[in-house]
Amino acid sequence: MQEQGSISIHTENIFPIIKKFLYSDHEIFLRELVSNAVDATQKLAQLASMGSYQGDVSGARVEVKVDKEAKTITISDQGLGMTGDEVKKYINQIAFSGATEFVEKYKDKGDTKQMIGMFGLGFYSAFMVAKEVEIITKSYQEGAEAVKWTCDGSTSYSIEAAEKSVVGTDVILHVADDSEEFLEDHKISEILNKYCKFLPVEIKFGTKEETEKDPADEEKEIKVQKDNIINNPNPIWTKSPSDLTDEDYLSFYRELYPMNFEEPLFWIHLNVDYPFNLTGILYFPKVKNDFEVQKNHIQLYSKQVFITDEVKGIVPEFLQLLHGVIDSPDIPLNVSRSFLQADNNVKKINNYITKKVADKLSDLFKSDRKAFEEKWDSIGLFVKYGMITEEKFYDKAIKYSLLENVDGEYFTIDEYKDKIQSLQKDKNDNVVVLYANDPEQQHGFIQACKERNYDVVKFDAVLDSHFINALEQKLEKVQFKRVDADTTDKLIEKEEEIKSVLSEDEETKVKEVFEKAFDNPSYTVTVASLSTNEQPLTVTMPEFMRRMRDMAKTGGGGMNMFGAMPDQYNATVNANHALISKLLKAEGEEEQVAIAKQVVDLALLAQNLLTGEKLTSFINRSVDFLAK
Amino acid sequence: MQEQGSISIHTENIFPIIKKFLYSDHEIFLRELVSNAVDATQKLAQLASMGSYQGDVSGARVEVKVDKEAKTITISDQGLGMTGDEVKKYINQIAFSGATEFVEKYKDKGDTKQMIGMFGLGFYSAFMVAKEVEIITKSYQEGAEAVKWTCDGSTSYSIEAAEKSVVGTDVILHVADDSEEFLEDHKISEILNKYCKFLPVEIKFGTKEETEKDPADEEKEIKVQKDNIINNPNPIWTKSPSDLTDEDYLSFYRELYPMNFEEPLFWIHLNVDYPFNLTGILYFPKVKNDFEVQKNHIQLYSKQVFITDEVKGIVPEFLQLLHGVIDSPDIPLNVSRSFLQADNNVKKINNYITKKVADKLSDLFKSDRKAFEEKWDSIGLFVKYGMITEEKFYDKAIKYSLLENVDGEYFTIDEYKDKIQSLQKDKNDNVVVLYANDPEQQHGFIQACKERNYDVVKFDAVLDSHFINALEQKLEKVQFKRVDADTTDKLIEKEEEIKSVLSEDEETKVKEVFEKAFDNPSYTVTVASLSTNEQPLTVTMPEFMRRMRDMAKTGGGGMNMFGAMPDQYNATVNANHALISKLLKAEGEEEQVAIAKQVVDLALLAQNLLTGEKLTSFINRSVDFLAK
Repeated sequence: MQEQGSISIHTENIFPIIKKFLYSDHEIFLRELVSNAVDATQKLAQLASMGSYQGDVSGARVEVKVDKEAKTITISDQGLGMTGDEVKKYINQIAFSGATEFVEKYKDKGDTKQMIGMFGLGFYSAFMVAKEVEIITKSYQEGAEAVKWTCDGSTSYSIEAAEKSVVGTDVILHVADDSEEFLEDHKISEILNKYCKFLPVEIKFGTKEETEKDPADEEKEIKVQKDNIINNPNPIWTKSPSDLTDEDYLSFYRELYPMNFEEPLFWIHLNVDYPFNLTGILYFPKVKNDFEVQKNHIQLYSKQVFITDEVKGIVPEFLQLLHGVIDSPDIPLNVSRSFLQADNNVKKINNYITKKVADKLSDLFKSDRKAFEEKWDSIGLFVKYGMITEEKFYDKAIKYSLLENVDGEYFTIDEYKDKIQSLQKDKNDNVVVLYANDPEQQHGFIQACKERNYDVVKFDAVLDSHFINALEQKLEKVQFKRVDADTTDKLIEKEEEIKSVLSEDEETKVKEVFEKAFDNPSYTVTVASLSTNEQPLTVTMPEFMRRMRDMAKTGGGGMNMFGAMPDQYNATVNANHALISKLLKAEGEEEQVAIAKQVVDLALLAQNLLTGEKLTSFINRSVDFLAK
Repeated sequence: MQEQGSISIHTENIFPIIKKFLYSDHEIFLRELVSNAVDATQKLAQLASMGSYQGDVSGARVEVKVDKEAKTITISDQGLGMTGDEVKKYINQIAFSGATEFVEKYKDKGDTKQMIGMFGLGFYSAFMVAKEVEIITKSYQEGAEAVKWTCDGSTSYSIEAAEKSVVGTDVILHVADDSEEFLEDHKISEILNKYCKFLPVEIKFGTKEETEKDPADEEKEIKVQKDNIINNPNPIWTKSPSDLTDEDYLSFYRELYPMNFEEPLFWIHLNVDYPFNLTGILYFPKVKNDFEVQKNHIQLYSKQVFITDEVKGIVPEFLQLLHGVIDSPDIPLNVSRSFLQADNNVKKINNYITKKVADKLSDLFKSDRKAFEEKWDSIGLFVKYGMITEEKFYDKAIKYSLLENVDGEYFTIDEYKDKIQSLQKDKNDNVVVLYANDPEQQHGFIQACKERNYDVVKFDAVLDSHFINALEQKLEKVQFKRVDADTTDKLIEKEEEIKSVLSEDEETKVKEVFEKAFDNPSYTVTVASLSTNEQPLTVTMPEFMRRMRDMAKTGGGGMNMFGAMPDQYNATVNANHALISKLLKAEGEEEQVAIAKQVVDLALLAQNLLTGEKLTSFINRSVDFLAK
């Protein structure tokens, strides 16, 4: 016994599932119906251009109407229309791909416009919000009679002759009780504005008032009702860059983000046919404080139909902060993220976009370095993010990635190495890049560096600690040290030694006094012979230790042991400072410790470590002293 | 002409859509097939318990096997099985709801166990990952013959007689080339662990090694291979709370979150039958620093099948930080968020959970206040969040919501009002709650309050600024002021006036000197007659101004004008402080300004406003002074 057969689908059971599962968002019904209407309109225009249809298609548009009292939404087009037989074929038999058949038939007859979607299946999304749907349609074919199709959401329909003078289709939704929100004008406006803003045929929704000259009296202005066209059928990304001005790009940006009052820094027009089809414009925004909020600004379209603003997986991570649009029929929709990442087209699109961005930045840098530097605050975020996360991008961007020093001068990495290597090379031949992550707070340390003619770079952006790690891994014989990581003399270790003015006994005594003044095991006191212009006491946390602690704070793997340990500081007394000699001459240890305590408080102040009770008592002591 | 008809579905076209669109995540196929197998196993057990089946069902389990070489995944059960006719009915006719028919038939015959899902449709998800699927099945019915059904993902199938000795069903997937990731043991383990961890029938996947006593020699231990049961068929949420110990709840918590090493603070067992069905356990976690990261820890199940850990819309916003499980067949799945929010059951579930949590907290507070206070750091987050966002919860929680003062004592709102109203009532009869948001930084101001026997509350949590707003709106005649919002004398305005020791001319002179010392229009200098123990100079930002600026920073609506303005501070000179009299006696204005500058620096230090170049020069000046 072996039997062959064909799997059948019980329509009564599958129908509710199509309605419920096909789209997770009910508002999609409008996108689907308007897309179908646009599709039918374009098809008729194409037939007309090929001479297969003699009627006038020039003013054809799609119209959406809401009748709140009758509880209906109507989508009308002046497109192909359908005969009774076509209704039976395309509507009654779900998922017959009308578009495929049409494209097959006409594909060799010249410039086929892109067709949207798949007729038939999308139509049924109407039942997500409607309890009954009518179609009144008249085909463009000669002698065709208008028909009316009605269905209440069950699987039975009725079809009958209808009155309709013009060619085209009206779809009338009788909105279900639980979907009456869709009878609100503002709701329909919102959905049209989201999904249909750039559809290629004019879409009318309602009217708006405009001021015009009175034809009877040219001096007078009158209010007139005008059709409200909600879309821009020819968005600039469909045009050639050579036909566009800067103002075109800027005004399109304002159209995309009407609530965003900052102009973009610059933009990239994407346009590729092979091996995948993709057009679009990416804008580099001025970067504001908050990092996360700015993601998901790129809008994804498929043949001018808005799909999503969730471009994760399609656009490289570091470019998701950009703004703009991408239009590609080659990005698979409605599939899982893991699938997306494995998709070959998506990988190619990713690489293409990365390369385009890297090249654009290189052009900007070469053609107008000054403008590039001025925009670096914003551009730098993308560039650093990209260099950290994408090897290929790093290799390109290392040539124009900039370092800014605390005096506001900019250098490429190579230029900076040249600049500092005479003075800032240590005894092991490493070039030491000194940086501040908070120039205001580290002011004293920066000043001390400047007195030695050292240069200090500013690394105060969110990503900079990762950027430093990335650079250290790539660059040879280059080290990064924060200005407060050691006493200024020791930041860049040289061969020469400075002699101490103190005897060994005196140094031991000084150490004892300061240990008593600190009275805290977190501070390790050493006495060093430093330049006389160094502070009498400097409190520092070594670079390595501080980085480990920073990583522990942000939850870096395996670094928790550093998070659990108390902070450990080096307290370096400068044996050669005049104040230390004076302290040794003070009478009795008590007086010496009292002076040392004041010195300790000042050193802690310089590192922002004097807080709470200690700060209060320092202030009170100082006020009392002044009042004496 | 009117014609009636029935909508039909072209199987060839709809089939790929079911395969592609039904689930966005391909891994779901395993959940569906294992759920079906569990379902069939439970049905047979039920028939056996009713005497309709005589075979042994006691050891029945589901087994999942992967054969990497043959590229197959097999899901076997010892459940109902199917006859050839049933295969044709249930499998070949998609979306015939087998479960519905079964439940209908047996529903009056006693304790019907809950049945999972809808047989048939879920099965076809197999084709998301398989190029060919076989079913080998033998029905429990007497004399039934085993059959084998094969389908290659097109709509044709074949069916033939097969060899199978035991009752039950094997589903064999021949994995497609693009889905070979599902042939990895770790991948299957991961999916089973995610979706099937608490299914009600034992599920075996692979073997594991265990140590046992050697039966031949009791002294010896040997390694034996044991079946690896991946699930816990009786999770504690299905049991009665009276049968469970604390340790049961704690060990279930560890089972749910093996990577979470902190024990929960306490838990709530949810159990309701009417008007909706819901069971579950919610755990209150110890709260760590990061706020956002902790969301989405509650797992949502439907009859022990894992559905999602995205419970937004189902659990009230403020309780999404809790951990645990919720199991309810009454939560609609796979529907849009907006629909979810309008769903009546979801609203009821929301209210039920909120009430349960509010009551549990009230019980804890009443039964062991000390323990409640100790946990307040963590509990407080939920309570405050709930009070801010849910009116109903506020009304309950206001009775046990606590304020902690800077000395670590806890008070309910009513207790605290009683405590402070004798000393902290202003001349307009408002009770003024003084608070610090950073007790370390505001140490000096707190000390000044304590000297007047004022109490200071700690508001240092993320939500506290919103919590303060919520309380001020609800409580009458209560104001909140940060300790550094004014001089301590003025924080709570009293009727009595303190007399100034300075003449009017002297006050004018003092004002002039300090304006020169500040040399900055952001500081408005006034001379006030304060207590002699107040600081000689206090720099403050008024409460209202500071709150507006904080709101502008976090992007509050319409507050941007405050963000754009420079910071404005009040600088209040205490006419009655000894230092001010001394300053007036200093020789010449230059000397007076020099003293005032030092006073200014100390006042700025107390407000953390002395930074950068100003701090460096203060430190250098002080070092020089000490070295002199």
